[in-house]
Amino acid sequence: MIFQSTIEEAHDRIRPHIHRTPVLTNQTINQRIGAALYFKCENFQKIGAFKARGGLNAVLQLSPDELANGVTTHSSGNHAQAIAYAARQVGTKAYIVMPRTAPQVKKDAVRGYGADVIECEPTLDAREAGVQEVIERTGAAMIHPFDDDRVIAGQATSAKELMEDYGQDKPFDVILAPVGGGGLLSGTALSAHYFSPQTRVMAGEPEGAADAILSFRSGVVEKAPYINTIADGLMTTLSPRTLAIIRQHVSDILTVSDPEIIGAMRLIWERMKIVIEPSCAVPFAAVMKHADQFTGQKVGIILTGGNVDLGKLPF
Amino acid sequence: MIFQSTIEEAHDRIRPHIHRTPVLTNQTINQRIGAALYFKCENFQKIGAFKARGGLNAVLQLSPDELANGVTTHSSGNHAQAIAYAARQVGTKAYIVMPRTAPQVKKDAVRGYGADVIECEPTLDAREAGVQEVIERTGAAMIHPFDDDRVIAGQATSAKELMEDYGQDKPFDVILAPVGGGGLLSGTALSAHYFSPQTRVMAGEPEGAADAILSFRSGVVEKAPYINTIADGLMTTLSPRTLAIIRQHVSDILTVSDPEIIGAMRLIWERMKIVIEPSCAVPFAAVMKHADQFTGQKVGIILTGGNVDLGKLPF
Repeated sequence: MIFQSTIEEAHDRIRPHIHRTPVLTNQTINQRIGAALYFKCENFQKIGAFKARGGLNAVLQLSPDELANGVTTHSSGNHAQAIAYAARQVGTKAYIVMPRTAPQVKKDAVRGYGADVIECEPTLDAREAGVQEVIERTGAAMIHPFDDDRVIAGQATSAKELMEDYGQDKPFDVILAPVGGGGLLSGTALSAHYFSPQTRVMAGEPEGAADAILSFRSGVVEKAPYINTIADGLMTTLSPRTLAIIRQHVSDILTVSDPEIIGAMRLIWERMKIVIEPSCAVPFAAVMKHADQFTGQKVGIILTGGNVDLGKLPF
Repeated sequence: MIFQSTIEEAHDRIRPHIHRTPVLTNQTINQRIGAALYFKCENFQKIGAFKARGGLNAVLQLSPDELANGVTTHSSGNHAQAIAYAARQVGTKAYIVMPRTAPQVKKDAVRGYGADVIECEPTLDAREAGVQEVIERTGAAMIHPFDDDRVIAGQATSAKELMEDYGQDKPFDVILAPVGGGGLLSGTALSAHYFSPQTRVMAGEPEGAADAILSFRSGVVEKAPYINTIADGLMTTLSPRTLAIIRQHVSDILTVSDPEIIGAMRLIWERMKIVIEPSCAVPFAAVMKHADQFTGQKVGIILTGGNVDLGKLPF
């Protein structure tokens, strides 16, 4: 169970190891949408993504005994770097199972933090089998990318900072995050619930990995009808844990196509002069698509990360 | 003549119309160079480049009579947007002569500020003829991109902010800017001279437009041996006005090749998650190339702009 104090303690725990990331606004974009948008720039976070928060909050709670054998996880990218970075911060070894199709820049970054990268086929089965092998071989502690209260409480601190820094005079009407496994989304929803109850939380999801919207409606964890999206960080399904929080505290999930994601990504690069990855553009793409829903509102958007392979841009 | 008070008055004049841009640092880059680098992010400035400063400082000093017929200039890009933006801020018309080879994103942006774009051949003669035609037709006031004390004093405010925000406890050992026509470089040198006399100022210049280093050595304005560089904002030669200031207050000019510029640009995109244009990467490329010259020093770098055509990236 994640209480208000769980998130506050998480924030105190990870604060020495993370950036309090800036919040950017842009007049041109506000005029185009007809709303006041506040972008929380987790692309400037340590490891280039919000996942540093959850990874640190989990690893920093391990006992010396648990840490002795290192930590492990599987991830297509940013959680991998998060665990590698967190392991380095506490002085233990990280073993990261990554699909061989993950962007080279992410594999290189993981190795740059001193972690071992174990490549596997790009399926959930292969990833889980890879982690199991690592655990049997090393005794490393597994940190799941999202199905873990420590991780969720860590991710919750991004929205907490956004509300502390820009939601005091007037609370946000709505905060949006992307949804993959649901760690960030459920953390964001809990932060709004505890720290700004009048603020709604919504999600953006790629049409090409549209599992969360089905699960959100049916109440059971469903798979996407098909997986085909440029948003490579959002391909995973929810867990019962994240679904339960999302069903209770999220007001809606909006889906967007890949061309809409790429257009939103390009607009942010061109106008805001910041590098964001495709998964990161999904909530803004949803706001652009459904601008009428946000007219005149104060809107927070978690920009999740900027780890993009510059050799493989979609424009 | 540009006095300390000229720069201070320029700053007061333009302050309501510009952003006080952030200064970013990056641990990985500092470790690689072995120095403490402070990047002044003019890519986040209005119009996406420092040139908003000089353009505003010039246009805001025009009399109502002068403003009545509008303003004009020729520019390959950022000065064009600067004058278009400044004209809109004071409610007058801008006529911008641009080479037809200028990036589409820059032409679009100029038109987006309500200016007329007059396309011409990409030569200095054609650009100057285009402006002359505009002046004869409209009576517009010409604002030169750099050969103008008002413009130089405006550009000087970027380094002034950098030193105010990060040079108080310990002055910068050196501040670097790129050099094209020399407006930013001479302004930066004057700011250091007046506000932080112990700070050296250096320039980065593309090998493929290496006129400033020749002029700097000989003392007369020289042309580049050849023009062939990705740094499309740095192709112009100095004027006697900028050369005189640079000879007096700049300690050295370092040249870099296009592959070095592209490598520096890519490293900033990948590590700092910000969008900068090729011209903007030139001083950092010089610091990377000559890292030994900067070991242990406190180094300021003016990141000049982020107006890059995302459809034509060099990687």
